[in-house]
Amino acid sequence: MQTAAKTIPPSQSIHDLVTPSLILDRGRLTRNIARLADHARQLGVVLRPHMKTAKSIDVARRVFPDGPGPITVSTLAEAGYFASHGYRDMIYAVGLSPASARRALEICWRTGAEIKLLLDTVEQADALAEVRETTGVIPSVLIELDVDDHRGGLKPDDPKLIEVAARVVAAGANLVGVLAHAGESYGLNTPEALVAAAESERVATVRAAEILRAHGYACPIVSLGSTPTAHFAQNLDGVTELRAGVYMFFDLVQHGVGVCNKDDIAISVLASVIGAKPEKGWILVDAGWMALSRDRGTASQRVDQGYGVVCDEQGRVLEDVIVSQASQEHGILSIRPGSDKTMPDLPVGTRVRILPNHACAMAAQHAFYSVVDGESAGIEARWDRIRGW
Amino acid sequence: MQTAAKTIPPSQSIHDLVTPSLILDRGRLTRNIARLADHARQLGVVLRPHMKTAKSIDVARRVFPDGPGPITVSTLAEAGYFASHGYRDMIYAVGLSPASARRALEICWRTGAEIKLLLDTVEQADALAEVRETTGVIPSVLIELDVDDHRGGLKPDDPKLIEVAARVVAAGANLVGVLAHAGESYGLNTPEALVAAAESERVATVRAAEILRAHGYACPIVSLGSTPTAHFAQNLDGVTELRAGVYMFFDLVQHGVGVCNKDDIAISVLASVIGAKPEKGWILVDAGWMALSRDRGTASQRVDQGYGVVCDEQGRVLEDVIVSQASQEHGILSIRPGSDKTMPDLPVGTRVRILPNHACAMAAQHAFYSVVDGESAGIEARWDRIRGW
Repeated sequence: MQTAAKTIPPSQSIHDLVTPSLILDRGRLTRNIARLADHARQLGVVLRPHMKTAKSIDVARRVFPDGPGPITVSTLAEAGYFASHGYRDMIYAVGLSPASARRALEICWRTGAEIKLLLDTVEQADALAEVRETTGVIPSVLIELDVDDHRGGLKPDDPKLIEVAARVVAAGANLVGVLAHAGESYGLNTPEALVAAAESERVATVRAAEILRAHGYACPIVSLGSTPTAHFAQNLDGVTELRAGVYMFFDLVQHGVGVCNKDDIAISVLASVIGAKPEKGWILVDAGWMALSRDRGTASQRVDQGYGVVCDEQGRVLEDVIVSQASQEHGILSIRPGSDKTMPDLPVGTRVRILPNHACAMAAQHAFYSVVDGESAGIEARWDRIRGW
Repeated sequence: MQTAAKTIPPSQSIHDLVTPSLILDRGRLTRNIARLADHARQLGVVLRPHMKTAKSIDVARRVFPDGPGPITVSTLAEAGYFASHGYRDMIYAVGLSPASARRALEICWRTGAEIKLLLDTVEQADALAEVRETTGVIPSVLIELDVDDHRGGLKPDDPKLIEVAARVVAAGANLVGVLAHAGESYGLNTPEALVAAAESERVATVRAAEILRAHGYACPIVSLGSTPTAHFAQNLDGVTELRAGVYMFFDLVQHGVGVCNKDDIAISVLASVIGAKPEKGWILVDAGWMALSRDRGTASQRVDQGYGVVCDEQGRVLEDVIVSQASQEHGILSIRPGSDKTMPDLPVGTRVRILPNHACAMAAQHAFYSVVDGESAGIEARWDRIRGW
């Protein structure tokens, strides 16, 4: 059911917003959602969006206009929240501890949702027996794969893969598949490298599924994804589902990787000018790391965007103006080193928008989105976010 | 009035907490509060604590056991929150925009609090006339000083100091003093340099007050401070009040500067082990940057603490174990480069605590504190935090 949460009187505009405020551009959001949905459809896989970026039922409703679909979550607070809104098919994409497994199954018991759990060790598998007994719910489990030395997970050829599968079954849980995340793709920046990373993620993940099947495990779910590889995958044979999260909003890191343009970035922080140091080329604004996050993900990319790219109040990029420094509630705007641009005239009280290095991190600093569309100043709605664990 | 908010049944222990959770050690908090209060008393100045770190009325009650005292705030959300709890004397330590000044005075009108505003330009001063007229409240104003090229503010000898003072008075506002923040002291690391920075902050601030007085402005408030200079100041002649915020909790950055010991750090994030990569020397935990923050403030210090120092569940430091990498909900523990230690045995489900690089940033990622005392596992209380702007 499509309902606009907390519709705001039409007279409210971004000029009335307290600064700093988090702005979400509905047109860009809609375009980004459609782009990956189309791509997944063409590749013949289910899209299981990761809700860790948006953390909002109102955003989820734009992703699933016809009703709840399969999702990925990063916390059990998200799982409980989306379950309360009718979402039934979730993967909790963080390796389980005995305590988190128990809590997840309690949510399943209470809401009727199925929260699929993730693990990669025999210790985690063994712990499921007691969790099953305590909660009376049979856990559904995916084995986490390591396809690019990024974080956790087992290599497809690791003999532990079969050992873990056996222990999952021995614990009385359902082994429903394998899951990979090509997290190292964030460090790439050419289409060729991204296409290759997507194919390498696919090959390793499908191989793990085949090994499991050769040992008698059905492995119905073959799940992979990261925003860069999801967009650059050309073939997903053998894969059943694709996961991505930041693609709904995009950000400067994804722009640096080459997955989006700056004008695809759907969130920004509205800030007010509160001073200047003309002798240093500085403009001071009332958005620091509390509003922008401390994320400096572009620092290791070809173009370092400081704490974010600065736009005018309508969202048009002010060329080569970045947030060069940030303290808790102060940002310092300056011209990017090496640029021949001069700082535009931004008197005290002027409002600007700042694009995120990392959308997940910027959004996490805010309790809600003020939804706009394009360059219109009208606020269409306020969409709440959830937080915590 | 001293009341424990939301007292938790005594049976609740940190073993029952969801991970990640933010832990506050009451004993350490009490000791840190007493240390700076004693120092301010010896120096003969009023302490005006900055609430931007704790953002909690329960912490404020430990700072002011006899009832509300003078405070500093970083957002107008904090101002409104503390006003609703009886705090009357506040400095909003972020330069004003016309919109924020209006909102601050509306809070004053509604609550009876006095929120002193900060500015350093004639444009901000001129804007006060209309704000005064709209709200019917006479603004109280401090001029922001720049004592170490850190951020905003005027140099004491800048002729604009007198010009801005004149325009504040012309706008019908009360000029109540000057304010400095020696933010560059965070980059120091010897007692000599810190003592010198504190004295330099004092000299510049007092000089600005004297210049204003020579021009006929009374300048009753002479306010300065930063956690490092506040602790190392040896003489505050001419100063009326001292400000600091992070000192209540302390953190690894302050430890690197030399202001505290590791066992003074009062907050930490409780996390659970969810896996390991023995071949890489990694232990994986369920606390990433969402729980720890993206702050890497120790990266530029002599000892880089990664995303934080790891302790056992009781808060005892595991020597040379740090969080070396962090993604949204995953942290990777490893042994500090160059150390001859080996990783302790931390099986899946083990709980650890992680000390913050930057207490303001870590606390900001959480909605509440679970309050403990020392190595006892009992949770004494849950103290809520406020967020937003």
